[in-house]
Amino acid sequence: MRTYRLVIACPDRVGIVAKVSNFLALYNGWINEASHHSDEQSGWFFMRHEIRAESLPFGIEAFREAFAPIAEEFSMTWRVTDSAQKKRVVLMASRESHCLADLLHRWHTDELDCDIPCVISNHNDLRSMVEWHGIPFFHVPVDPKDKAPAFAEVSRLVQEHAADVVVLARYMQILPPQLCQDYAEKVINIHHSFLPSFVGAKPYHQAALRGVKLIGATCHYVTEELDAGPIIEQDVVRVSHADSIEDMVRFGRDVEKMVLARGLRYHLEDRVLVHGNKTVVFD
Amino acid sequence: MRTYRLVIACPDRVGIVAKVSNFLALYNGWINEASHHSDEQSGWFFMRHEIRAESLPFGIEAFREAFAPIAEEFSMTWRVTDSAQKKRVVLMASRESHCLADLLHRWHTDELDCDIPCVISNHNDLRSMVEWHGIPFFHVPVDPKDKAPAFAEVSRLVQEHAADVVVLARYMQILPPQLCQDYAEKVINIHHSFLPSFVGAKPYHQAALRGVKLIGATCHYVTEELDAGPIIEQDVVRVSHADSIEDMVRFGRDVEKMVLARGLRYHLEDRVLVHGNKTVVFD
Amino acid sequence: MRTYRLVIACPDRVGIVAKVSNFLALYNGWINEASHHSDEQSGWFFMRHEIRAESLPFGIEAFREAFAPIAEEFSMTWRVTDSAQKKRVVLMASRESHCLADLLHRWHTDELDCDIPCVISNHNDLRSMVEWHGIPFFHVPVDPKDKAPAFAEVSRLVQEHAADVVVLARYMQILPPQLCQDYAEKVINIHHSFLPSFVGAKPYHQAALRGVKLIGATCHYVTEELDAGPIIEQDVVRVSHADSIEDMVRFGRDVEKMVLARGLRYHLEDRVLVHGNKTVVFD
Amino acid sequence: MRTYRLVIACPDRVGIVAKVSNFLALYNGWINEASHHSDEQSGWFFMRHEIRAESLPFGIEAFREAFAPIAEEFSMTWRVTDSAQKKRVVLMASRESHCLADLLHRWHTDELDCDIPCVISNHNDLRSMVEWHGIPFFHVPVDPKDKAPAFAEVSRLVQEHAADVVVLARYMQILPPQLCQDYAEKVINIHHSFLPSFVGAKPYHQAALRGVKLIGATCHYVTEELDAGPIIEQDVVRVSHADSIEDMVRFGRDVEKMVLARGLRYHLEDRVLVHGNKTVVFD
Repeated sequence: MRTYRLVIACPDRVGIVAKVSNFLALYNGWINEASHHSDEQSGWFFMRHEIRAESLPFGIEAFREAFAPIAEEFSMTWRVTDSAQKKRVVLMASRESHCLADLLHRWHTDELDCDIPCVISNHNDLRSMVEWHGIPFFHVPVDPKDKAPAFAEVSRLVQEHAADVVVLARYMQILPPQLCQDYAEKVINIHHSFLPSFVGAKPYHQAALRGVKLIGATCHYVTEELDAGPIIEQDVVRVSHADSIEDMVRFGRDVEKMVLARGLRYHLEDRVLVHGNKTVVFD
Repeated sequence: MRTYRLVIACPDRVGIVAKVSNFLALYNGWINEASHHSDEQSGWFFMRHEIRAESLPFGIEAFREAFAPIAEEFSMTWRVTDSAQKKRVVLMASRESHCLADLLHRWHTDELDCDIPCVISNHNDLRSMVEWHGIPFFHVPVDPKDKAPAFAEVSRLVQEHAADVVVLARYMQILPPQLCQDYAEKVINIHHSFLPSFVGAKPYHQAALRGVKLIGATCHYVTEELDAGPIIEQDVVRVSHADSIEDMVRFGRDVEKMVLARGLRYHLEDRVLVHGNKTVVFD
Repeated sequence: MRTYRLVIACPDRVGIVAKVSNFLALYNGWINEASHHSDEQSGWFFMRHEIRAESLPFGIEAFREAFAPIAEEFSMTWRVTDSAQKKRVVLMASRESHCLADLLHRWHTDELDCDIPCVISNHNDLRSMVEWHGIPFFHVPVDPKDKAPAFAEVSRLVQEHAADVVVLARYMQILPPQLCQDYAEKVINIHHSFLPSFVGAKPYHQAALRGVKLIGATCHYVTEELDAGPIIEQDVVRVSHADSIEDMVRFGRDVEKMVLARGLRYHLEDRVLVHGNKTVVFD
Repeated sequence: MRTYRLVIACPDRVGIVAKVSNFLALYNGWINEASHHSDEQSGWFFMRHEIRAESLPFGIEAFREAFAPIAEEFSMTWRVTDSAQKKRVVLMASRESHCLADLLHRWHTDELDCDIPCVISNHNDLRSMVEWHGIPFFHVPVDPKDKAPAFAEVSRLVQEHAADVVVLARYMQILPPQLCQDYAEKVINIHHSFLPSFVGAKPYHQAALRGVKLIGATCHYVTEELDAGPIIEQDVVRVSHADSIEDMVRFGRDVEKMVLARGLRYHLEDRVLVHGNKTVVFD
């Protein structure tokens, strides 16, 4: 069913819900789903409505125009999106295929509602898997001594393919600050630890060294600071002394792909609102 | 913070949210929390608002009067409750203390916001534990050959103590149909299995016999049909071949008390809406 | 690392471990992993050793001969397998691809240590996916009015491909009794509910109707009685009133594939011992 | 059932299991439970046997003498304990009662198999709760300007009560280095975060600030370095943007008490082997 998703953040006060729901009722908008969050600490209010498109007398542009005065009155940060307009997701991967294969399969079976205009990788290993899905694959090797040309090419490809979202599906390279800024809140990473534990390289080795009893994965927006961006989703799995690092890596793969798939889905359905370094996720 | 909780169920249509939020905005009601659920299958709409009491210009009775016409217009099943008016919870137990002790401790430390006018048990074992908390304890033995007098006494005690809720904290006796009807949606039971598996007696033995790899507990409203009432909350814990029935019973105790405590809390905060044999839980 | 897996079940008594470990020590066998389970209720003892093959002075046949007298002395049901001899797994699927794709990917990336000589399906939909992996695909349609010819063909294919294990990766057809008997403890099914709840067709619909708060999946050996065979592995995921049946199906897919992959792995590594209708799983 | 628990750690080599199980078989020892772990990275071997006491022809002292030569031959770090000889557990708490009340209840209902000679607290709040259980309560206030006298008194009480274990059940004070050394691997703490995340004070505030989607608790042995000792057990619970710090504290309490109870039980049953800064837990 086609829906419009109206997503709002603004300073909290009396009358916001009334104003917005009046607006929707005025135009006979049928609310499929409504979520609210009043954040006492920051004094902000967050809100997401999913409205049946066919119940409204106008399209998304007219919606935007009609709603703009209300948004202004309440100093809202807001957006309205059309579920029929699929987001364009550029996937980036390296050599390990578990996250990429998982996302491709979900897309292939229509579970993940998006377009995937291309996959970019610094290695050529996964080309055949990607191309079987009918998706263009770009091999952009990264020269460790001079990474700039590779990232220039990545940026070019991302722009050329009009990406709405970039997903680092175990890409294993740190993006340059400029790219992080250009695509703020639009680059999603999966880190293979339960952040903030074990930032950086080889988190499973770090976890084994510390002797933790659970390992995890974290899906977050990429910011300039490594592994420090707003967290979208996390999960863990139990390990024991009997598990080698290889076992942890294997268990971890399953957590990584589940957490990334959930995080990306939330993003695609406009369920994630970033505020400061935290997220509101209306799941 | 004192709040009013407005809980509504009605046939779904356009304009419900607008009407209700207009009503609240009209009186400057500050919404702390709002939850909605549009059930496509039944065509019903469910809604819960938590409004700061001090933001409204009137008390709960005036609220009820003012809201009644709207409720009628939309054929609502509804209630508004005052968080300051603690619900009266009569606890019933048998010999095993884990659920009772857990609820008493949560009450003792102000985690569970209710009054406990008394505890009723068919055994005398837990008297001292209850009385240490300053709560009256009634020992009502049940004669297996003639249970009617005991349940008459139970009914009398429940009424005398003006119970809003009756919690069967491992009471291990089946309530008579009349009591189930009199207190429909007001008697909460904890069953020591993951329902609908293992209805009735000795569920851990049934679980061991079947060789399941997880065992669970279910908090539900009591209806005339045994272990078949609307489910409020469930959870499970992993077991293995290495666990004896005694181990299962031990693991199970922890799940039982957690699930019951969560279920009761949802009920006390008016987060549970029963519809048919199912619940909407706005947690 | 190549290992031999010695798997034993026998009536419990003093001296079993000593006898077996003496045998291993006598031949300088290096024990990588050892698991024991003494089942008080049945009076049986279960045991699994994983021994480095290169530490032993003989091959698997000589191992078998040398160990046979001990096995006889203790009336053991036993087997010893060679990790280098990959089990042959015939996968069966229908139209839904999530379990099949998951297993194929794990095999493709060497996570699942087995051979997959072929995939059999009653539909042709998944041919291309299977063939991309370089695995033969057999389309054996099942005529609802006369299923016998199809199952005769399935049996023939299974035998022709010398299957050690048959995995029903959401095959959605009930195997005939003869096939269940011929491949006792060798056919692994994934049922999309937390058994024993919701046996048979449309378990997610049954779950939605009952209003459970968790849904699950069960990996079990197939026996003649539907969904009643020995359980290898189970898991659950939380759902709420907000989740439609479609949501449940989607959440369930992830649980199904995880549970099936874990269960199959246990089987392939000879970690599962069936006793009566229950399993010992040395994970 | 009375058992002896033989717990062994030594450099790995061929023949350890044979030697130990021969020893047990020689004296007709009936093995109830046996666990092994061969740690490839460190090259160490860990082992725990639970043997029915009545099956052996001698008591624990004779056991020790008879086993000593074997232990020496294999350079074992080892101990054998008698399940009938209850460990003496001194509990320490501050003002918050959830962990203390939970442990006391488990002890009161014979779930926790130990003696509790006394409870020590820096506040007087929990005296009545402790004394209801028939356990002596010592109030040892800690002067923030001069903590030494208090800790001298704590040490004296711990020694006077012949503690085998000291449990910091949310004691909220950092023990002096000397006490940590004197009771190495004998002081168990519960930290209210998923370590190594959020070491030190106010971990729930730190968690809220970072916007994590799961919070946890960690049970560990106390060492001189704050919150850095060997981890025995951990667990987590899901939180969301909707949860205030107060909610996190409330959810966290349940995780804390479960994790501490499990960790302490493992310790009491001699299931924990410390090696370096990590633990082997034969659960």
